[in-house]
Amino acid sequence: MSDVKDDALKIVNYAIRKSLPDEAVRAYLERNPLPAGRVILIAIGKAAWNMAKAAKDVLGKRVAFGIVITKYEHSRGSIDGIEIYEAGHPVPDQRTLTATERVLQITKDLRSHDTVLFLVSGGGSSLFEKPKGLTVNQLQEITEKLLKCGANIVEINTVRKHLSLVKGGRFAQHVYPARVVSLLLSDVLGDRPDSIASGPAYPDSTTCSEAFNILKRYGIEIDENIKSALSEETPKRLRNVETHVVGSVRIACEKAAEVAGKLGYNAIVLTTSLNCEAKEAGKFLASLVREEVFYNRPIRKPCAIIMGGETTVHVIGTGKGGRNQELALSASIGIRGLANVVVASVGTDGTDGPTDAAGGIVDGRTYDILKDMNIDVEETLKNNDSYSALWLCDGLVITGPTGTNVNDLILALIK
Amino acid sequence: MSDVKDDALKIVNYAIRKSLPDEAVRAYLERNPLPAGRVILIAIGKAAWNMAKAAKDVLGKRVAFGIVITKYEHSRGSIDGIEIYEAGHPVPDQRTLTATERVLQITKDLRSHDTVLFLVSGGGSSLFEKPKGLTVNQLQEITEKLLKCGANIVEINTVRKHLSLVKGGRFAQHVYPARVVSLLLSDVLGDRPDSIASGPAYPDSTTCSEAFNILKRYGIEIDENIKSALSEETPKRLRNVETHVVGSVRIACEKAAEVAGKLGYNAIVLTTSLNCEAKEAGKFLASLVREEVFYNRPIRKPCAIIMGGETTVHVIGTGKGGRNQELALSASIGIRGLANVVVASVGTDGTDGPTDAAGGIVDGRTYDILKDMNIDVEETLKNNDSYSALWLCDGLVITGPTGTNVNDLILALIK
Repeated sequence: MSDVKDDALKIVNYAIRKSLPDEAVRAYLERNPLPAGRVILIAIGKAAWNMAKAAKDVLGKRVAFGIVITKYEHSRGSIDGIEIYEAGHPVPDQRTLTATERVLQITKDLRSHDTVLFLVSGGGSSLFEKPKGLTVNQLQEITEKLLKCGANIVEINTVRKHLSLVKGGRFAQHVYPARVVSLLLSDVLGDRPDSIASGPAYPDSTTCSEAFNILKRYGIEIDENIKSALSEETPKRLRNVETHVVGSVRIACEKAAEVAGKLGYNAIVLTTSLNCEAKEAGKFLASLVREEVFYNRPIRKPCAIIMGGETTVHVIGTGKGGRNQELALSASIGIRGLANVVVASVGTDGTDGPTDAAGGIVDGRTYDILKDMNIDVEETLKNNDSYSALWLCDGLVITGPTGTNVNDLILALIK
Repeated sequence: MSDVKDDALKIVNYAIRKSLPDEAVRAYLERNPLPAGRVILIAIGKAAWNMAKAAKDVLGKRVAFGIVITKYEHSRGSIDGIEIYEAGHPVPDQRTLTATERVLQITKDLRSHDTVLFLVSGGGSSLFEKPKGLTVNQLQEITEKLLKCGANIVEINTVRKHLSLVKGGRFAQHVYPARVVSLLLSDVLGDRPDSIASGPAYPDSTTCSEAFNILKRYGIEIDENIKSALSEETPKRLRNVETHVVGSVRIACEKAAEVAGKLGYNAIVLTTSLNCEAKEAGKFLASLVREEVFYNRPIRKPCAIIMGGETTVHVIGTGKGGRNQELALSASIGIRGLANVVVASVGTDGTDGPTDAAGGIVDGRTYDILKDMNIDVEETLKNNDSYSALWLCDGLVITGPTGTNVNDLILALIK
């Protein structure tokens, strides 16, 4: 394995390790002690168990009591002093309501010197819900109607926040006068705290009249109960809340840049919201690599170009692969023949498409190694068969499931 | 017009002006006087007339004699002391051979204190040719066979250079012991002097045995004459030649960065060989703009992100547009709602697809302005109808034919 490839894998692994839910929570809590007083631990989302376990490990007996609500089969056993619930995702179910009710019950009579440590990860929106003025089925119905009419996700969430007793900042209102320290693990590009799990502990920027107008625009009729529920504003300010994103693709990119710097590369983070077609992102990135190799810009070599996001793949072929593998394989065309360059693209969750690989890694020889085996890279990409090709040239990155998901990390090293 | 949009158009116009063939030649010659002695001016390519005129204007009576070979209808009248020929492009014809023969004739008995000022622009490969050991028709036949068998352009040029008396450095050999000062206007990404017009005055890096192997690989039979022609090496070193790329997308990008700096923007050139799908390049660029707006990186605002290249478009719709207009319109999705940002993409030749526009320019309001007119940007892009949409929102850049072609210039300004 070349030095540069070795470095690339080191950087990717470090960034993923620093993005693990437990590591992210532990690092935060160790550096930022919670205020004195009792701690009530509430964790929701797909990574809730891991985040809660890490918090409990750091805080020990300071945690008075707590609740974890995670997806079915995502709990890993008991945690001392914590009730653990599993519930429906992506569609909320009866267990969601039961568990949420229990959270509201134990956080009802808190005092100003209590701290709710609120740990939020992806999936929290479905796992933490109590509809306001309607049944969970009615809520589901309205959501589906909005989707059918072409409403976008921002419009749908505006309506849903106003029809919930926990979303849109209302959970924070409920626990008042207790403080809320909210630690977020974001799987949403852009890290907007009001969109992660629909922001139960974050001031809502949308209004009742916006919610009404959206329902009107799409011609969705509502009964008096819902009308009345919709007439009450979500909180626009929350004085008892502080919010920290402890894990996200942005942080993963910054961690990658940090370790790349330690390895001697001039590192830049170009974007943390890449969202174009994987194959084309690979071509684009290859053109950046060429600019570095031939003209030593935009930053001086040796350098690391770091990007985060989630690319897309329009599957037209019958092959096996994933967006990260396609990005890497596609980049191999544009960096063909160049020495001391590597391009890697990796899903931080360890899973890329329906494969056992997390992503792909290529260098200037990849294209010709495959050509010598009679593999045509362009044709392989047309058939969405990146896995098979990368397998043949030692170009797969295999990590196994990592336990986190902060989107994808894309990296080019030029030495 | 907003300040930022105004700045973007200033930058694009400046970069194009500095890339005009006459401007590029004039600027070079004024700063770099030719060695003493007679000057013989030979200009080939689509911009040959403009380049020759500028050189003659600067050098005046120092030009002893000269020849222009350009494409039909590309001459703009007589130039004192210069013979002007028009010939076939993209397929060489009898006029190509006649004009080339005339060039070889007048440059036959030059002396060591003579300087051949060799002005080369796109199309030169077809406009300057004398086959070696075969007729022009036979040469055409071999080229077509190679294309049919799937040979790539590098392979085809390797064969062609060895079957030519002017390509692959042989023209420079012919004029020896005279010096050659070669000024190139490049329409090829990467600016490789041996690929612009097949490098008549540049050492050839390909060999006879490579040429033989390519013909063998694709099963193309050749007669004894051709075999014998192919057995003579092209020059690998040329001591009488100096080569300067005076115009190219790389230089256009650098000129854009220069003027952006003067206007107060921190400018970076990210790539000068962008070659992915236009729509996806627009998405990618928008993600870079967002990173600047939200996280002020990779360089500090106010900043200019500059790219050069030639994107592609897979036409699937029935609309009207071009690659630059698609790139810009696509970027409008990802920069929607952002203040003080502009994305522009412009063909330096002033023509983008089958339209009268050179490209497109969008900002954070473009998407919603179109939405208010019931124009769905995503649908418009699916129908390849960028021209119509940009026309409605003052998003077309119209320059008219500029007289140069150094590919496309893509620019994002973030204030």
